[in-house]
Amino acid sequence: MAYDASGLPDVTGLVVGIIGGTGDQGRGLAYRLARAGQRVLIGSRSAERAVSSAEEIGALPGIPAGAALSGGANADVASRSDVVVVAVPWDGHRATLAELRGPLAGKIVIDCVNPLGFDKQGPYPLPVEEGSAVQQAAALLPDSRVCAAFNHVSAPLLADPEIDRIDLDVLICTEDRELVGVVAALAARIPGMRGIYAGRLRNAHQVEAFTANLIAINKRYRAHAGIRVTDL
Amino acid sequence: MAYDASGLPDVTGLVVGIIGGTGDQGRGLAYRLARAGQRVLIGSRSAERAVSSAEEIGALPGIPAGAALSGGANADVASRSDVVVVAVPWDGHRATLAELRGPLAGKIVIDCVNPLGFDKQGPYPLPVEEGSAVQQAAALLPDSRVCAAFNHVSAPLLADPEIDRIDLDVLICTEDRELVGVVAALAARIPGMRGIYAGRLRNAHQVEAFTANLIAINKRYRAHAGIRVTDL
Repeated sequence: MAYDASGLPDVTGLVVGIIGGTGDQGRGLAYRLARAGQRVLIGSRSAERAVSSAEEIGALPGIPAGAALSGGANADVASRSDVVVVAVPWDGHRATLAELRGPLAGKIVIDCVNPLGFDKQGPYPLPVEEGSAVQQAAALLPDSRVCAAFNHVSAPLLADPEIDRIDLDVLICTEDRELVGVVAALAARIPGMRGIYAGRLRNAHQVEAFTANLIAINKRYRAHAGIRVTDL
Repeated sequence: MAYDASGLPDVTGLVVGIIGGTGDQGRGLAYRLARAGQRVLIGSRSAERAVSSAEEIGALPGIPAGAALSGGANADVASRSDVVVVAVPWDGHRATLAELRGPLAGKIVIDCVNPLGFDKQGPYPLPVEEGSAVQQAAALLPDSRVCAAFNHVSAPLLADPEIDRIDLDVLICTEDRELVGVVAALAARIPGMRGIYAGRLRNAHQVEAFTANLIAINKRYRAHAGIRVTDL
């Protein structure tokens, strides 16, 4: 029952779409996954911006020649993907997902959005009617398989071509135990990352909110902090 | 600004009182601190139980001969200590601290209580009127210096005399920056532990609540999980 990457499913053939793929988090994840050889689609409200973002990412160091990386409008990307990462700003989360219920039906949806506010004292968690961003996603997407994951990965680390390994754990919250293996296998494609099951959706709020603590840690220690679960 | 244990203050002379020192978390912390040579007072509602608990801990492997370890009633322990760890069950948190406002005045108070509920689906965070256990403590103890810390340390690991090192980070949430060094120095007395500043009190809720995720991780992976902050 210990964490064991050798038992994870083969996800190399899956197409990963990234909704909000032109933002920092989405671009960073797209870069890392494409660099690992995953087929990646960048989604944006503007298909044109998505296409140019895919071209930019494709030109970054480490992307294999002939990498399958392209861009399109969010709905198009959602319907052409097996797994869809939701990486939109929190204030567009509800509206974006409500529009994508059809194209996301039957898909695996990975929500990495953190509902945070910022004031003079720094970041703090915003209240969410459904409890958390991922619970909002689950409510809006009843026909999708939903989890929270990749909430804590640092966008600057993802984007830095000099960095080969990103040593941290991706916490996966979901009601769908089978999903955990798929998401852990995707995380494991990025050297240094492990995907760890971290509880049900009702326990996702604190995982999302913990990003505020990581931002405080980053400020205090001038770091790009993530977390590693010990004793696994 | 990186984490650097060499810059921490000398806390070897401080007396650490543990309110709720007869519970698993309190006993475990008392054992580890006494084993490291810290002067420790075990507090309980019953002075008699505290005394016998101190005797039991004093007889465990690794406790130095002549260790300063004794027990007493909570109020007595609070007034005789420099630093007081609050390790009571959540349902006794408010009443216990309300009674100790006087004896805890001027003291450093470390709250390690996690407000969790349990049902058939496992643990989940309880709502707290003040936002978190430590914010409740801060409201009840306006004359004390308050932080949250040691929320995630596994009681079975603390209690196991065979274990020399406990590799995890103690997240410290507080408004009192100077406190961070003292608490980090106390954490560093336990081999393997680091104390890391992790944000203001308003960001303590998710640190406390994250214990529910660690319990889910422990169940899934048969582990005694903690967390380590990466890139520090």
